[in-house]
Amino acid sequence: MNRETLISNIRFKESFLCVGLDSDIDKLPVPFTKDLEGLVSFNAAIIEATKDYCVSYKVNTAFYERYGSGGWEALEKTRALLPSSHYLIADAKRADIGNTTHQYARAFFEQMDFDAVTVAPYMGRDSVEPFLNYPGKWTILLAVTSNIGSEDFQLLTDSEGIPLYARVARKAVSWADPDRLMFVCGATRPEQLEVMRKTAPDHFFLVPGVGAQGGSLEEVCKNCMTDDVGILVNSSRSIIYASSDADFQSAAENKAEQLQKEMAHILSKGL
Amino acid sequence: MNRETLISNIRFKESFLCVGLDSDIDKLPVPFTKDLEGLVSFNAAIIEATKDYCVSYKVNTAFYERYGSGGWEALEKTRALLPSSHYLIADAKRADIGNTTHQYARAFFEQMDFDAVTVAPYMGRDSVEPFLNYPGKWTILLAVTSNIGSEDFQLLTDSEGIPLYARVARKAVSWADPDRLMFVCGATRPEQLEVMRKTAPDHFFLVPGVGAQGGSLEEVCKNCMTDDVGILVNSSRSIIYASSDADFQSAAENKAEQLQKEMAHILSKGL
Repeated sequence: MNRETLISNIRFKESFLCVGLDSDIDKLPVPFTKDLEGLVSFNAAIIEATKDYCVSYKVNTAFYERYGSGGWEALEKTRALLPSSHYLIADAKRADIGNTTHQYARAFFEQMDFDAVTVAPYMGRDSVEPFLNYPGKWTILLAVTSNIGSEDFQLLTDSEGIPLYARVARKAVSWADPDRLMFVCGATRPEQLEVMRKTAPDHFFLVPGVGAQGGSLEEVCKNCMTDDVGILVNSSRSIIYASSDADFQSAAENKAEQLQKEMAHILSKGL
Repeated sequence: MNRETLISNIRFKESFLCVGLDSDIDKLPVPFTKDLEGLVSFNAAIIEATKDYCVSYKVNTAFYERYGSGGWEALEKTRALLPSSHYLIADAKRADIGNTTHQYARAFFEQMDFDAVTVAPYMGRDSVEPFLNYPGKWTILLAVTSNIGSEDFQLLTDSEGIPLYARVARKAVSWADPDRLMFVCGATRPEQLEVMRKTAPDHFFLVPGVGAQGGSLEEVCKNCMTDDVGILVNSSRSIIYASSDADFQSAAENKAEQLQKEMAHILSKGL
């Protein structure tokens, strides 16, 4: 999916919501068998309940990988359920030397045809390039993450007073245009969101941390929304585990609809 | 495998060689069918040819993941072929928020029973801890990598003049003892190897970049070998693709034996 289509989907649906499928067998609501088949059926039900309210899905590879090749099969089945009308993200946080990253690019862009993959910046440009160079696909580079550990290295300032996350963003904007590069910026870091927006005025941000992790939707929008919207806000657990009972599907739908309404309000009235 | 066993294996075999199974269907020698079955048979032949000369195997997950769930099945079959006498590394470079990292730990430590997994430090302590806290297992944290992109961020110095890779090492040595934490330090960076050794005097380093990437075994040993040896030197392509013809197995054996002999010489005579 290209940038124009993404923006026009956001305008049409009045939503910049990304639903994260961090699906966990141990947490499946009562109607499902606690196995991989149950997991895929649960994902199907969540997609059905949320697809009108979101423009994107993010699949967290760890939650499938933990079950080995059977888990990867469940990941492939989940991918097959995801509607191509949505911007589809493999949340994999991969990166390695170029030759190896090229294999990861094949895994997520060829084998599974995701629109985008999340990528860790530590190994530098040549570890990211095979993702960036993939025609028609997107790289979503970690900048400032929503967890407490983001303070350990991402906030360290260099000899010029620039924190690492901003250094990552400064370099990366010279590697790729806003039509194939986004940044991960945690909702729990409002100050850093502002810095990020100044550093990358036209790039989309994928913003996790609203909901279960405590970030505020309003504050996120205030700090980094652009004329082209410029943000996808991810919510995983607070939607997919909105209820663990038989009403899980309507609970997920209500939660997604509620977020979509807040987003529609912000999009139409401003902040 | 614990630290004492690893060191005693190194002393007994006079080798600190790790063979990297970055196996690629497109590069399989002539005797093999160009499919996942051929890939696993090739790995079996390489393991057979090299096991007497190395103490460790490193499996690069990207080369399996690129074939989807079938590739993961080939990874599991390869894992089943690996001898438990060797220190077994999943070269996966994972890390995410704690809840997600915990799933990756299950994938590599429970599902596949590797001894160790390579981990990216960008997201900080809580993204690494679920690996570190896994009883009897090892974390191999990226410090300074062998690729050119390592200069982009790893060599950036902070306001106190400390480069990022050394900052990562300084923090991480406070997170875990040398009996469950190693660092990835590229052979192509002799100066940084020396700094790393000063920063983490007792931790093992996993050193890629000898061979195809141009690093020198002697220089690596000079810069960071310890009384407990303290290094595993990885070689992937220069061993497994030593020949693409019918003699590939003896070529791989010869290449591994040659490296083992150089290591035996260094271990017995010093540098």
